[in-house]
Order: sequence, then structure tokens, then C-alpha cells
Amino acid sequence: MDFAFDDRTQELREQLLDFMATRIEPAEAGFHEQLDGLEDRFAWSTVPVLQELRAEAKERGLWNLFLPDSSHTGGHGEYAGAGLTNLQYAPLAEITGRSGHLAPPALNCAAPDTGNMEVLAMFGTDEQKARWLRPLLDGEIRSAFAMTEPDVASSDATNIETSIRRDGDEYVLNGRKWWITGAVNPECEIFIVMGKTDPDAERHRQQSMVLVPRDTPGLTVVRPMSVFGYDDHEHGGHAELRFEDVRVPASNLIGEEGHGFGIAQARLGPGRIHHCMRALGVAERAIELMCERVESRVAFGKPLARQGVIREWIAEARVNVEQLRLLVLKTAWLMDTVGNRGAHTEIQAIKIATPKVVQEILDRAIQAHGAGGLSQDFPLAASYAAIRTLRFADGPDEVHKASLARAELARQAAARG
Amino acid sequence: MDFAFDDRTQELREQLLDFMATRIEPAEAGFHEQLDGLEDRFAWSTVPVLQELRAEAKERGLWNLFLPDSSHTGGHGEYAGAGLTNLQYAPLAEITGRSGHLAPPALNCAAPDTGNMEVLAMFGTDEQKARWLRPLLDGEIRSAFAMTEPDVASSDATNIETSIRRDGDEYVLNGRKWWITGAVNPECEIFIVMGKTDPDAERHRQQSMVLVPRDTPGLTVVRPMSVFGYDDHEHGGHAELRFEDVRVPASNLIGEEGHGFGIAQARLGPGRIHHCMRALGVAERAIELMCERVESRVAFGKPLARQGVIREWIAEARVNVEQLRLLVLKTAWLMDTVGNRGAHTEIQAIKIATPKVVQEILDRAIQAHGAGGLSQDFPLAASYAAIRTLRFADGPDEVHKASLARAELARQAAARG
Amino acid sequence: MDFAFDDRTQELREQLLDFMATRIEPAEAGFHEQLDGLEDRFAWSTVPVLQELRAEAKERGLWNLFLPDSSHTGGHGEYAGAGLTNLQYAPLAEITGRSGHLAPPALNCAAPDTGNMEVLAMFGTDEQKARWLRPLLDGEIRSAFAMTEPDVASSDATNIETSIRRDGDEYVLNGRKWWITGAVNPECEIFIVMGKTDPDAERHRQQSMVLVPRDTPGLTVVRPMSVFGYDDHEHGGHAELRFEDVRVPASNLIGEEGHGFGIAQARLGPGRIHHCMRALGVAERAIELMCERVESRVAFGKPLARQGVIREWIAEARVNVEQLRLLVLKTAWLMDTVGNRGAHTEIQAIKIATPKVVQEILDRAIQAHGAGGLSQDFPLAASYAAIRTLRFADGPDEVHKASLARAELARQAAARG
Amino acid sequence: MDFAFDDRTQELREQLLDFMATRIEPAEAGFHEQLDGLEDRFAWSTVPVLQELRAEAKERGLWNLFLPDSSHTGGHGEYAGAGLTNLQYAPLAEITGRSGHLAPPALNCAAPDTGNMEVLAMFGTDEQKARWLRPLLDGEIRSAFAMTEPDVASSDATNIETSIRRDGDEYVLNGRKWWITGAVNPECEIFIVMGKTDPDAERHRQQSMVLVPRDTPGLTVVRPMSVFGYDDHEHGGHAELRFEDVRVPASNLIGEEGHGFGIAQARLGPGRIHHCMRALGVAERAIELMCERVESRVAFGKPLARQGVIREWIAEARVNVEQLRLLVLKTAWLMDTVGNRGAHTEIQAIKIATPKVVQEILDRAIQAHGAGGLSQDFPLAASYAAIRTLRFADGPDEVHKASLARAELARQAAARG
Repeated sequence: MDFAFDDRTQELREQLLDFMATRIEPAEAGFHEQLDGLEDRFAWSTVPVLQELRAEAKERGLWNLFLPDSSHTGGHGEYAGAGLTNLQYAPLAEITGRSGHLAPPALNCAAPDTGNMEVLAMFGTDEQKARWLRPLLDGEIRSAFAMTEPDVASSDATNIETSIRRDGDEYVLNGRKWWITGAVNPECEIFIVMGKTDPDAERHRQQSMVLVPRDTPGLTVVRPMSVFGYDDHEHGGHAELRFEDVRVPASNLIGEEGHGFGIAQARLGPGRIHHCMRALGVAERAIELMCERVESRVAFGKPLARQGVIREWIAEARVNVEQLRLLVLKTAWLMDTVGNRGAHTEIQAIKIATPKVVQEILDRAIQAHGAGGLSQDFPLAASYAAIRTLRFADGPDEVHKASLARAELARQAAARG
Repeated sequence: MDFAFDDRTQELREQLLDFMATRIEPAEAGFHEQLDGLEDRFAWSTVPVLQELRAEAKERGLWNLFLPDSSHTGGHGEYAGAGLTNLQYAPLAEITGRSGHLAPPALNCAAPDTGNMEVLAMFGTDEQKARWLRPLLDGEIRSAFAMTEPDVASSDATNIETSIRRDGDEYVLNGRKWWITGAVNPECEIFIVMGKTDPDAERHRQQSMVLVPRDTPGLTVVRPMSVFGYDDHEHGGHAELRFEDVRVPASNLIGEEGHGFGIAQARLGPGRIHHCMRALGVAERAIELMCERVESRVAFGKPLARQGVIREWIAEARVNVEQLRLLVLKTAWLMDTVGNRGAHTEIQAIKIATPKVVQEILDRAIQAHGAGGLSQDFPLAASYAAIRTLRFADGPDEVHKASLARAELARQAAARG
Repeated sequence: MDFAFDDRTQELREQLLDFMATRIEPAEAGFHEQLDGLEDRFAWSTVPVLQELRAEAKERGLWNLFLPDSSHTGGHGEYAGAGLTNLQYAPLAEITGRSGHLAPPALNCAAPDTGNMEVLAMFGTDEQKARWLRPLLDGEIRSAFAMTEPDVASSDATNIETSIRRDGDEYVLNGRKWWITGAVNPECEIFIVMGKTDPDAERHRQQSMVLVPRDTPGLTVVRPMSVFGYDDHEHGGHAELRFEDVRVPASNLIGEEGHGFGIAQARLGPGRIHHCMRALGVAERAIELMCERVESRVAFGKPLARQGVIREWIAEARVNVEQLRLLVLKTAWLMDTVGNRGAHTEIQAIKIATPKVVQEILDRAIQAHGAGGLSQDFPLAASYAAIRTLRFADGPDEVHKASLARAELARQAAARG
Repeated sequence: MDFAFDDRTQELREQLLDFMATRIEPAEAGFHEQLDGLEDRFAWSTVPVLQELRAEAKERGLWNLFLPDSSHTGGHGEYAGAGLTNLQYAPLAEITGRSGHLAPPALNCAAPDTGNMEVLAMFGTDEQKARWLRPLLDGEIRSAFAMTEPDVASSDATNIETSIRRDGDEYVLNGRKWWITGAVNPECEIFIVMGKTDPDAERHRQQSMVLVPRDTPGLTVVRPMSVFGYDDHEHGGHAELRFEDVRVPASNLIGEEGHGFGIAQARLGPGRIHHCMRALGVAERAIELMCERVESRVAFGKPLARQGVIREWIAEARVNVEQLRLLVLKTAWLMDTVGNRGAHTEIQAIKIATPKVVQEILDRAIQAHGAGGLSQDFPLAASYAAIRTLRFADGPDEVHKASLARAELARQAAARG
């Protein structure tokens, strides 16, 4: 047992921290300004300042860090990323969470592209890789992952109702999706869509995934969903989509028919690690802002920083973040050593624990800021909204708790013999 | 001790519930549609559907219900309202909270106009009443209350820094304010501004209030503040204001010089009751939505309504709301029987308890809705944002807790003798 | 709506507060000393100081205050108590909670005798009243109520397994009971025992109650149960009982066969009010002790009373207790005006809310006392243990929450039409 | 970074788990029986079954595992223990926590002897080691650590008032102590007493520690303190002590005069790790008992294990325990790699986090057991009492939170530059 980062992680952390401090953070205000000046405010990936940062990140070797160690996943050949393990990448993801709108895309490490690139690297055909993975890895286009549906509890992926019907050399899609992150951005060129190819198959074999280019006839971006009052245009919004007799070539199938559920599961583990580590970066940023604020703000004759309740908030934030980080890192280590399936319980655990802890820290950081904490003058309220959505991502917390408890009960029953 | 409403309250509740069900609630969609069609989206008070509802409310005798019993406050003569006690008005305010954007203004019972009208009724000169109170009571203009400042912890009203300097027959104002609700609306014609007329006086005698018409030179509406992404244009937003050598006639002083703190305190009690009761209406609406949702949504083979965790949420919501309502009603009764000063501790108590309880209920109602609960498709996230701001209104919870604890410690020390 | 006590309540409160301050509280130390000196430490009712207090309470007219208004329950004739309504008695019960070991028995208002006397007054035959109710009302004997069983979840009274079989002119009892409060005291002469007379009847008609004198052959007091480390000998402990072919005359049946469940329900409402109000007295005492302690204790250069976290505890305790008391009082009022059945939801609500709130207050009061708060030097830890048991009384909280939520869902569904 | 145990730890875990399963756990009932049969119920160390287990533990090489790696602390020579690092010992301590009364003493790894042995090994003279450390390491005598005082907030060790006055070749002690664990046991032969040798010295240089044999004239064991209702005789109770002109030879001083505070700090780190890891063992045992109970208990037609609220408790318990364990292990690792001082913040963090989490788990495990969970039939209530005391050990949580927050604020200020 050893709690120190290895040399490569340590080195990359330093490079990344330098890039954050000298390039990303100074660029934030300009990014939002240029973004507000766009004709289509959702076309965030066209913002010039972002283009410059991406060029520089490539140059510095801080590009595609997310793409995991090829030896573990079978090798991605010419589509290889940085080849880090989950445990090596996790602390880097945390750092990018401190500037959540700008850092992940500057490094080509932003969801949902990361998960989509992994899916294509692992399950795509050579043709699919050349056509879609290449430009994604090069940061030339954006992608979306269309799974969640408005009419069913998508926490249970087997509930999905969108139909993907084979018709000769084509698949025909019909259905509705919503909360499809990034999809309002016109540069989001390709959608990975999950639907049912065989409603009569065994429950986990009914689903398949197909690639649907944005401009395919019959595909409509109905509206952007908002989260609290935010439209999240900084990363392409969350679209409601309608598929009406959308036709794609049969070669757009990812993997095999009936493998959709399995591919979704494979995509899940790393995504969870990334989300949770970035959320920890958000929490660290909130603690920083809170500490800074309470030093400078005086009420009833002394700085807030010297008031007991505020100190309790700071202490509890620190204690909770430290615990949480270790659990996320251990989960990354388990994924590296025993695989995603072996780390199943821990993956659920971090999904349960992270948003709750970070939401609470943000709420208190807001409270320490006074009403300004809820406004556009600080990133806290927007972060709160973003973190709050995580309690629904891949199903609400309650579903994961129930599942984790079932596993615990089974484990204990086995131990009792 | 008797927990039944009196006859007048009961009768008004029935009339109001009917007005809500038959007129207000059906008008909500149209209100938002017309609002979105305005050239200036903050000019909410010009929306036609609202004008119609206001005319009808007057006709039905559901107008200015908030203005308290004249016998208690010394009589308002020709400016009298419905003459209800706080205890009679409170349950009506709760009902209006169910349609928080539309019902209070339709009845001319919306903050901050209510508090401003009370101030003018109690402390205004005949000229001020004729000039400003009359059109406010008739619903012809809107008003704002400018107290909070960006640079100081406004929880302590004595911190206020805006200067109000006497210069001959005029007062000259300089300073900054923010979170001035309603002030972005161009129909908001008059501002009650709190500032310091005598920085050298005793701590609670430095402040005064003056009336500043919107079009006074030197007064700038700098920008609207947002709350979790919402600009709250439905009720005129929350403005940042700048006062640069703003000159008003000396006759615009409300009450006497040095009485600003006292007037602010007098304004506080009823405002707190109104806010808390409306918040309870929000909570009741959230419970309704949650109950409806969980009956219709199936996950893992049975409706959410039959799952234990959901039932716990519903039960706790009901139990908490029942307790809270009784405390708010008792506070109203105390204000009616022993006055605002005698009800000081209870007024603090409801300020501490209400937002916390309602925020938690909304969070769970959102969770029961899935991601949709955070979106524009339900009123829950917007309500959450609105209720969250209450934890800062008139100072953050923590200030009120500290003060209430001091009073408790003093009371206990006195009892020990 | 009116939140003031009526004249009779106010008068009795003053008399009782005087009795508490001048007689009960000064006698506490002596009571425990004499108790420790008894040969059988569970024979608490024989302690001389208690006898004196009881004589004086009778003289002062503070005797049997609990027995409700005879007009409401059909009149108890020669067995009448003070004739107070639930709403009148509740604030008196709260006061006795401040000295929970001594005050309730000194006034002949201690559970489980109170509930047992009500059962006999309402459902007993003339013979049963003369034989058992008379000496109970006169404070000459003690009684127990034997319902809970070790082998089943007694939260569901229909689970009860003790058999009561008719055999000629007798009933024969077999079964086990536990947590039978007061039963270790040898002066506890009569047990009301719930069991099944007809296992084949409709689910709520299988149960009956019979009177079993302590000395009946076949009835064994197996052992006292402990709560945390306390044996609660101050009020007769909590016995495990065994019934082996215990025979009583058929005339010992209370009410009719198959009415056991109904009688248990009737017993429940007032008992809940009493428990909750006494618990509020415990909470008030804890707040007093906490306030006193934190004034006198200095850490890191200032009294605890001036530290923010401690103030937060005091404020939250006060705010929570105020809300809770109002709900309990409203429940008492409902029982008086619409009956126990009409107050069903509120009776559940106070059962859910009270122990949780008071447990938290005690935990914080303990924390404010340092380790001494857990010891025999303060009443806090013992109170904590006592209040903790309330979360199981008449079934665990979770059962009541589930039931209350079902009712809420049904009510909301009906309102939606 | 690596989350796997090293080989030696793994091997010792297996040996210890075997010893627990085959010898310790089967001996528990007998231990308590023999203990109840003792003339002096506090003389727990004389129980025969314990003697046997101790002999066997020595034989199996499971003796004095706690005594840390000699290379790190300067070497203990002939008084060397197992030489494990903190990180190696921690998982073993957790295992002993599952049988908290019996396992730690069976392995000679019970507090407060462990800390006292460390103090003697690190700071004792050769004579002190031969006289006291030898028999302690051999398990022949017991010891106590007398620091906490009734009259001052001992959270601040500089508050201590007991005087240790030099008088010729002797020290003379006067003062009161309480909560001196183990000291009621007559086999507790030696007390390490902290007091002030120089009240005029710099604040952290006033204190010294001296060795006081039990039979020294003037030392009185006043009474045992109870925790909830437990007297904790299973490990020697918690004594109140009085020192009246107690005289010991000057050679009984540990280290130098004025070093008392420093020695206390050195004793703290490992003690905290041990306490927290054993507490995790308690939590694991509680989860086991809860899981077993809810499988076997049926209410309202299905096992508790299938009810949502219970599952939420199990899931949250698991998620919280996993996080907490990692933080304690990391703290042990830090102590091994950067020393106790470098691990200061983490040592505070585990003190803050552990009791709170474990207390909550125990409360829910009790609730899942019904009233029986509070009784002598399960270990849960007694564990609750024991864990609750940890929130006061070495000062209440609030003190540690305030201190940790101060450190965080300073760290953040430094980072801002």
C-alpha cells in the first residue's frame, strides 16, 4: 500500500498545473466573452481562444490524456492516446475540473467525446475509426451520446424504447431522446445512438448502438433543455432530439447487434472516474473561493474566517474531500488491476458519494459568499447546477444505492455460509 | 387555544382558492408566453393577461389583502387595505405561493410593493401618500426597496455605506446597491433608498430613507443579477444600481432623519410572514407534483410511489411542513397580539426554519422527477433558486441563529436568577 | 385561531410549576438515594419520598390530571379524573417531563398506568373497575401493558402470537412478551395482556385483551431488559415475560372477544400525546442545562456560549422545539374536536417527529457538556436512552412514515380527482 | 499509488482472522460469564479465559503487534515489539475491533497500555523500562494514563491544573483527574500522570509526566464514571482519581521537566490510528449484524432486506466505511513516511470523521434490530456508547474542526501568495 503518485503522474501533474495557471485560467474571461459574441451561442467549439489553447496543449503533450493504457484494452494502434492508466489519469482529470468549461476541451478530454472515442477505439470498425475517431482525436469535430429518453426511467437502460430497425442495407431509427449533452452545438457532427434492434431478445441483448451523422434527414434537434436557469451553451447544451424514420447504412452499427447494453457498460467506468475527479476539482475550487472570501469579509466586528460555524464548514469540506478522493483513486486502481467488472461496487460507490458531498460543499461556499454566491459573479451557482445533474447521470442515486445494498447483502450472506 | 381558521379567513380562503383554480392557474402559460413576447422582457407588469386578472381580483374583493388591520397600526384612512390581521392574511399568502409569479401581483400583494406600501402608509407624509401610495394601492406603478450593498455584509443594516447628504432643500445620494428586486422593470417608478444621513450618530440612528424616482439623474440601473442562471424577469429582476450625485427634494425623506433603521425593522415582520407563507405554498405545490409524478412513473417493476425511500420523502415533507406552518401562524398571531417587537424571536425562527425545510423538499421533489425536475418543464428548479435566496434575505441564516441563541441564553440566565 | 392557553390550563400550569419547583425537584436526589437503598431496586413505588409527594399532589388537586374529559368519552362516573381535554392536559404533561422519573408518578400520571386506567374506564366491567381501576386511580397498585413480543415485528399488532384460548369459564394464555415496562416492580399487580383468541378471524378481529394478576401461576418474569446500560429500575424496568398455561377467569376479558386491536388503537392516541409532551419537557430541560453549562465553561479564551457552533446548536434546538410543540398541541386539539380517528395522520406525525428532534438536542447538549454529559453526573445520557426507545414504541419510525406517506398519496390522488 | 496490502500484512491478517474465528469469538460468552463471577467485577484482567488466550497469542506470534517499527522511533532494543509500521498494524487493529472487549487485551494491544508502553519505550529511563515496561510488554500488569480533569476543558492540554511540585528528591502531586480508563481495575499498577511542574514557564513547557504506582499514599480511586448506563468494567472502568500530597521519587519523572506536552503529542498519533481502525471493525460488525437481521425479519409481508429504506442504510454504511478506512490508512502511511507532525491534519481529520460515521451506522443498525438492538442481547448499544465517547477523546470534535480549519485557511492563504 502506497499513497504517493508515481513519477509519470507527478510529472504530468506539474506540467498540467503550469498550463492551467499560465494559460487556461487567464483565458477564462476571454473565452466567455468570445462565446457571448458568437452568432450561435451554442457553437462553443468555434471560439478562437479555445483553438489556440488546443494547439498549445498538443504541443505540450497534454492532449488526449484520457485515452487509457492500450495494453489493458487490447491496443488502439494508430489511434492510441497518452496510454495512461486510470489511476494516472484521475489526478489530472481532477485538475481540469477546476476550470470545467475550458480545461477539458482544451486538452481534448471533455465528455461526452472522451467516452465516445473510447467506444470507437474499442468497438469501431476500421472504417468507423478513420471516418469519426480520427477527427475526434484530432479535435476537429464533436460528438454526442444519445441514450436517455423522456418517456421512460432511463436509470434502467433496458427500458429504452427508441427503435433501430434493420431494413435491407440500412437501419431505420424512430424515437425521442433528451439530455443529449453537446448536441445543440452545430459542430457536433456525429451521434452514437442507443436503441432496440430486437425487442424480443433476452433483456440485455435487445439493444444496439449506431452512428448517426448530424445532417441525416429525419433527425431534429427539438430544443435545448435547461438546468436550473442555465442552458449550458458553454459545452453545447443538452438537446431534446427527435428521430423520425432516420436512415443510416448498416455499416454504421457499432460492434454487433444486441451488444448495445454491454458497450454502454464498458463506457461507464472510466466516465464515472472522470466525472468524479473533475467534481473533486470543483470542490477544491469552491473551498479555495470560500477560504478567500471569508478572510476578506467582515461581519459583526471580525472576519468570517474567525467565526466558528464557517470554520466548521471548512473543516468538514476538507475532511470529506480527502476521503472521497481516496475512494475514487482506489476505484481507478481497481479498474486498472481487476477490470471494470471487478470494480463494479466501487464505481457505484463513487457515483453515490461524490455529487452529494460536492453539492453540500458548494451550498456552503455559496452561503459564505452571501447573495453574490448565487449570481454570475462567482462560478459557484453554475457549478452547483452542474453537480446536481450528476445525481441523475446513469440513473438516480437511489437506484445505485439499492443495487449496491443488494450486492452487500449477497456478500454478507455468502460470508455467513 | 384553537387551531381553526375564523369565519372571515375561511370565507376568503374559499374565494381565493376558486380564483386560483378558475382564473390564475389557467392563465399561467399565457402569462409566460406574453412575457416572452415583450420587447423588454423585464417589463412584466405590462403583460395583458395580468392586467385582466388584476381587474377581476379588484372586482372579487381580492385586492390589497395584505394591508393590515388599521386599528392595530393607527389607521390608514383613505389608504386602507382589506384590514385583515396578520393571522388572517397568512393562509391567503400561502395560497398565492402556489402560483408565485402570477398570483401575488394579480392581487396587488407582491413583494416588494407590499412592504413599500406599508412603509408609506405608516410613515409617509400626506403628499408622499398621494403621490406614490395611491398609484401603488391602485396597481398603477411598481416600486423597489434599495437597501443591500455589494461591498458590505448587509446582514448588519448598520454597515450600509450609501451616503444621503443634506444640501439645502435637497438630499444628495451616492453609493451602490444590488439585489434590488423589481428594479429592472421600467414600470418600477419609485425607489425607497436606505443610506446614511449622519455617520457620526449613534449606531442605529445614522440611517434614513428617501424616495428616489426612477428617472432622477445620476441613478443608473447597472445590470440585472442572476440567481442560478435565472434573471427573474417575471418579477422585474434584481438590479445593481449606482447612485452618483442623485438629488431629490428634502420632502422625499420618509419619517425623520435617523429613523431609517427603525423603519426597516417595522417593515421586516410582515414581510417575513408573507415570504414564509408563500414558501409553504411552494412546498405544498412541490409535494403535489412529487406525489403525482411517483404514481405515474415505473422503475424496476413498480411505481416509484410504492418504493420505501420515496415514501420516506413524502412523509418527512408532510411532517415538516405541518410543523412549520404552525410556527408561522403563531408568529402572525403574536405580531397581532403583542406586536412585532414581542414576536422578534419567532420572526427570526421562521426565517431560519422555512427556507431550509422548503429547499430540502424541493430537492427531493426534483430527485423524484429525474433530470426533468431540473429543467424548464417543471417549476421545481426555479422554485429552488427562489427559495435558496431566502437564506440570504435580511441577512444569512447564520446571523439570525446567532442572534436567536443570544436571546435564548439571556432568557435562560434570567430564569436561573 | 388562538395560541393562548385557556384559563384553566394557565391556572393548573402555575400550580404545577410551583409544585415542581418547591417539592418535586428538591426531592429528586432523595428519591434516588432511597431507591438505591431498597432491597429490591425495582420496587420503586415503595420509596417513602414518593409516597409523601403523592399525598401532597392529591391535596393540591394535581392528581389524575391525565384522565380525559368525561363528556367526550361517555363519562366515567365515580371513576372520573380531572376531566381535562387533551389540549388542556398536554402542557401539564410537558412540565412533568422535566422530572421524568418523579413527577409523573407523583401525580399518578405515569405510563403505562395512565393508558391502562383509560382502558379500564372506557371498556372495563363494573367488577373490573372496582377491583383494578379503583386502586390504580388511588395510586395503591401499579399495572403493566403486555403487547410486544420478541419473535415478531410488533409494529404490526396483527403479528402477535400469544394465544388466549377459551377453556370453559377460563382463558388459558401461552406465549412470550418483552419490553413490558414497569413489570419488574413487585407492586405491579395487574397486567393487561393482548393475544389471539381467534387466529382464523378477520385480521383485525383475532385479538383480545385479558387481565392477568401478577401472582397467577404460569406467569414468569424472566429478566429485565436493559436500554443502553440502564435497567430503568426507577420505573420498574422492562420485563421479559413467559406465559405457560396461565389461567384467568373468563370475566377477566376486557370488552369483547376480537376487540383487542380496537382497544389498543383507542389507547394509542392519548399515550402518544403524553409521551411527546413529556419528551418536549426533556428537551427543554436539556436546553436549560446546555445554556447553563456553556456560560460557565471556558475554552480557548472565551466561554463556550460565545462560540458560533454552540450558538447554532442552541438556536436550532429552540426553533425545532417550538415547531414540534405546536404540532403536538394541534394534534391534542384535533383529538378533542374530531376524535382519535380524525387525528390519525397527526398522531403519526408527532410520533415520527418527536424522538428524532429530541434525540438530536440531547446529543448536542451532551456534546456541550464534554465527557461528563455521558455520565451519571447529568441526566442527559439517561434521557437520551429513554428518548431513543420512543423510535420503536408502537412500531419503528419507518413503519409510521410509510403509513403516513400512503395516506398522503391517497389524499393527493383524491384531490387530483 | 497502490491499494494492496503488503505480504507481511496479508499474512498477519490471515493469522489473526483465524485466531479471531477459532479462539476469540468462541470465548466471548465465557469471558463475560467469568467476569460476572469475579468478586471485584472491575478486575477484568484476572479472568482465566483471557489468560489462556494471551498465552496462545504469544505462541502464535500475535503479541505486541502494536509496537512500531524500531528503525523509525530510534530502536527499542530488548523492549522491541513486532516492528510493524503503522500502515501494517492498522488493518490488524481493525480486525481486533470486531471483538473489542476481548481481542485487544488478548493480543496485549489494548489501550491505554499500548500508548503507555510507547511512551516508556521512547522516553523511559533504563530503570523505568525494567521496572514497568517489561511487565507491561509481558502482560503481567496494567497501566493507566491520567490526563483529563473535571474542572477544566481538557481539550486544551495546557489547561491542566494538577500540580507536580519538586520537593528535594521527590515530586509531590495534588489534583483531580477523571475518565481515567482502566484505573478501577486493581491490577492497574502504574499511572502515568500529567501535571504542571512550572506554571510560570512558556505555555507548552509547564507540563511534565511522572509515574505513580497505584499503592502510593494519597492517591484515591474516588468512583467509576459511567457511560450511558455502562460502567465499562470489561476494561477496568473509567475512574475519578484524587491526588493529595502524593509523593514519588524524582526518578519517576518521564523524560525531562517541561516535556509533558510534547510526550502527550507523541502518544497521540498512533493512539488515534488504533482507535479509528478498531472503530471501523465495530462498524463492519454492525453492518454484518444489520444484514443478517434484515434477512431474517419479516414485516408487512416481506423481509426488511427488501425494503428500500433499509437498503439505503446498508448502501450508505458501506460507502461511508470504505472512504473512511482509506483515510485512516493514508494517515498511517503518512505517519510512517513523514512522521506524526507531518500527518497532523490527517490525524485530526480521522478523529473528526470516524466517530460520527460509526455512530450513525450503529444507530441505524440498532433501528434495524427493533428494540432488541438497544438491549443486552446485541452488542450494538454498548458499541454505540463506546464510540460516542470518542467524540470527546483528546478534546471534542469541535476543537479539532476549528484547528483543522485554521490550518486550511493558512494553507490557502499561503497558496494565494
